[in-house]
Amino acid sequence: MTTKATETPSELASALLKELPGEAVMWSAYDRRLYEYDAALETARPEVVVFPRTTEDVQTIVRLCRELKRPFTARGAGTGLSGGAIPMEGGALICFTRMNQVLEIDEANLTALVQPGVVNLHLTEAVRHLGLYFSPDPSSQRASTIGGNVGENSGGPHTLASGVTTNHVLGLEIVLPDGDVAWLGGKAGPGQPIDLVGLVVGSEGMLGLVTKVLVRLMPAPEHAATLLAAFASVETASRSVSAVIAAGILPAALEMMDKLATKAIEDSVHAGYPADAGAVLLVDVEGLREEVAESLARIVAICQEGGALMVRQAASQKERNLLWAGRKGAFGAMGRLSPNFYTMDGVVPRTKLAAVLAGVDRISAELELSVASVFHAGDGNIHPLVLFDEDCEGDLDRVHEAARRILDLCIQAGGSLTGEHGIGVEKQGMVPMQFSPADLAVMQRVKQAFDPAGVCNPGKMFPTPGQCLELTASGSRLSGW
Amino acid sequence: MTTKATETPSELASALLKELPGEAVMWSAYDRRLYEYDAALETARPEVVVFPRTTEDVQTIVRLCRELKRPFTARGAGTGLSGGAIPMEGGALICFTRMNQVLEIDEANLTALVQPGVVNLHLTEAVRHLGLYFSPDPSSQRASTIGGNVGENSGGPHTLASGVTTNHVLGLEIVLPDGDVAWLGGKAGPGQPIDLVGLVVGSEGMLGLVTKVLVRLMPAPEHAATLLAAFASVETASRSVSAVIAAGILPAALEMMDKLATKAIEDSVHAGYPADAGAVLLVDVEGLREEVAESLARIVAICQEGGALMVRQAASQKERNLLWAGRKGAFGAMGRLSPNFYTMDGVVPRTKLAAVLAGVDRISAELELSVASVFHAGDGNIHPLVLFDEDCEGDLDRVHEAARRILDLCIQAGGSLTGEHGIGVEKQGMVPMQFSPADLAVMQRVKQAFDPAGVCNPGKMFPTPGQCLELTASGSRLSGW
Repeated sequence: MTTKATETPSELASALLKELPGEAVMWSAYDRRLYEYDAALETARPEVVVFPRTTEDVQTIVRLCRELKRPFTARGAGTGLSGGAIPMEGGALICFTRMNQVLEIDEANLTALVQPGVVNLHLTEAVRHLGLYFSPDPSSQRASTIGGNVGENSGGPHTLASGVTTNHVLGLEIVLPDGDVAWLGGKAGPGQPIDLVGLVVGSEGMLGLVTKVLVRLMPAPEHAATLLAAFASVETASRSVSAVIAAGILPAALEMMDKLATKAIEDSVHAGYPADAGAVLLVDVEGLREEVAESLARIVAICQEGGALMVRQAASQKERNLLWAGRKGAFGAMGRLSPNFYTMDGVVPRTKLAAVLAGVDRISAELELSVASVFHAGDGNIHPLVLFDEDCEGDLDRVHEAARRILDLCIQAGGSLTGEHGIGVEKQGMVPMQFSPADLAVMQRVKQAFDPAGVCNPGKMFPTPGQCLELTASGSRLSGW
Repeated sequence: MTTKATETPSELASALLKELPGEAVMWSAYDRRLYEYDAALETARPEVVVFPRTTEDVQTIVRLCRELKRPFTARGAGTGLSGGAIPMEGGALICFTRMNQVLEIDEANLTALVQPGVVNLHLTEAVRHLGLYFSPDPSSQRASTIGGNVGENSGGPHTLASGVTTNHVLGLEIVLPDGDVAWLGGKAGPGQPIDLVGLVVGSEGMLGLVTKVLVRLMPAPEHAATLLAAFASVETASRSVSAVIAAGILPAALEMMDKLATKAIEDSVHAGYPADAGAVLLVDVEGLREEVAESLARIVAICQEGGALMVRQAASQKERNLLWAGRKGAFGAMGRLSPNFYTMDGVVPRTKLAAVLAGVDRISAELELSVASVFHAGDGNIHPLVLFDEDCEGDLDRVHEAARRILDLCIQAGGSLTGEHGIGVEKQGMVPMQFSPADLAVMQRVKQAFDPAGVCNPGKMFPTPGQCLELTASGSRLSGW
């Protein structure tokens, strides 16, 4: 902690210092500046940063915030891409990184009870010796916390077969915005007509502060194999993606990279991708040995029929790791192409992938921007990476315009504004493009049911009146089929 | 319609008759009596029974109910076991049986858009020629509607591998209690931080009236096989269930019947069950042919190690059907044992199955009642069938007492009041056994967010003040781990 002699803590910081250990409260301008951002573009400075260790600490923080009428915002590792952990209206930023204990591993019931600050990958490491793993695998899994994954309902390459975070959360302990603690769900499932577990997962920290998470563990598959397929274009690759799924095969992961992304990755990671391909598919198949062999053979045949330029199976675990290192290093590799890039997140029905990606190309050409695409093709979850230079005047405006047009395209195709990164601050203004006033009113009423005072992660998701006027819904959702 | 000359329609019935075709409105005492029950024990008579054909019809009904300050309750096929479709406070009973069209089958995206009155099994029949099926398979699937399945979040034998209804619903059109229509979710998933699709599924018709359902279809497996295993006791059978799951095998279905149920089924259906076994397991395995063979071999070995008296694989599709006819005919077979039976529904962690079932035996002995058990062992979802004779004075009181004690036992074991039948009217008084006042307050606030006037299926789920006093929570849920 670095404090200038002239600085004094705010009223809220002083109150917190009285009830929590000194090391749990950071209030200097220097420290607060370190916590004014997450992985989105926006920033906002907290009044005080607090590090609880127990549910009781969290209750204390909420009580003091309420007494002093200050808002609070939860933060995990700060890897969120939509600004969910940015304290837009100041107040207390509650960092859960010190609540990082795995409290119970129940091997027989295939569950683990964890504190929210446990890093995603650490949980899998803690249960690997039992032949188990925690399935949700966001690209950030070496850093992001399970609490953050719960907040954003994180997905990952293996979402295709195993689902997103909500499919792996059985129960939650939550400190409600009024300071009460509730247990939702349990080892026997939600067991309640009003499924509050499902409601809290993905609610971007706007309904309360999750202090314990009961997650499902999965048995590690007997065997896994990875296939690389190169195509002349995103369009032909997309057709093979649809054909694989339509054939009733459900790979564990089915990822695509376009030409620009493939080249950047290969130059940076040397993963063994064909650097001149128009699109590359990376396919993981898991299961019993025979099952994997049969599925692989069928996928190879479909890709070849679909005009693949090359299909190759990783010959060893080492080669599998290398192929995946390429995919996982994709965002890092973008630095080779451009000083900055903006990671987008939209979803479209799988069958619309080719058309939407052609539209992305058209939009980027019109706006004179380069876009690389790296994405979960099997889920129809696209991540166009819009390249720009923040030092170039006007670049960022064009990036925002491209983002708006691309997401509008997704919605027109029957898709959605976000697959796994959330709305947060980033897409707040675009919400009316997808949701009607009736939809939004219901969501707002649900938010108010949890947080009538509007103190829990305020300034997120719901469009402000100005933004509402700026953007209007692009056609009725009712006719969107 | 049978109307006595002296009868006149109520104000609400008259208003409905003005705006809807005569055949859509039933108001005679005779007709209304036919609709005063579902498959639960309670009854309540509606003021009028209405049969909408379109979303607009439903909006009209809601508008007239609001104008005349009358409540409304949705009904599918009336097969619900907890009273979800009983109009506790009268008003309009809205029967969705005429909204029974499959509106769209999207083979490439593996989805179907259906009206809520489509019978569960009819959807599978409509897509079977495409090699697809709709996965949720409640025992009532020949009669129950998809709208009803959505309301109760129905499960079935195949829930173990494929999940309950909520895992197969991608989107919903809903008429909100204020008459607005909202579209929730879509082909690209919920795509909204506040997951209203998950919230509405399982909410027992208390949040609005679902008028369209977008469901996921699944590719039919290449191969399926059925295994019968007999054990000396429920306890040894339960241990084998846990061992199968702990070995990382996920059968498509894993059902158990106890001694009493097995004997009744065998006497009635002649399914080929060993009538003297202490417990019978019925296991379905699905997948690729080799995968099925390997899983079967492992399950056989586990059951034999676990002391199975006999393990037999069905040799033909005909024998598979017969074995399953036994399980599906279990409720019907109970008539051989007793004039009446009460179907219970509780959930416990799989590892607690044997202990809880021993407790069920103890409770039934204490109360001098016979209990037969038929249940989804793999899910820990138990269905004790409490046998009684409604003509014997005091029998029903003891049944209710047994139900209370058995569900208390489930909750003490870290389980839940309901797995798939819902709370409804049936378990309304027991809700405080599982949920703390803080939990219930949040649920109530969510209910109010949708239905501030309390007109949508009122008198359900939330305990009335009297019931609250009668039963208190059995220990804090927070220490339940």
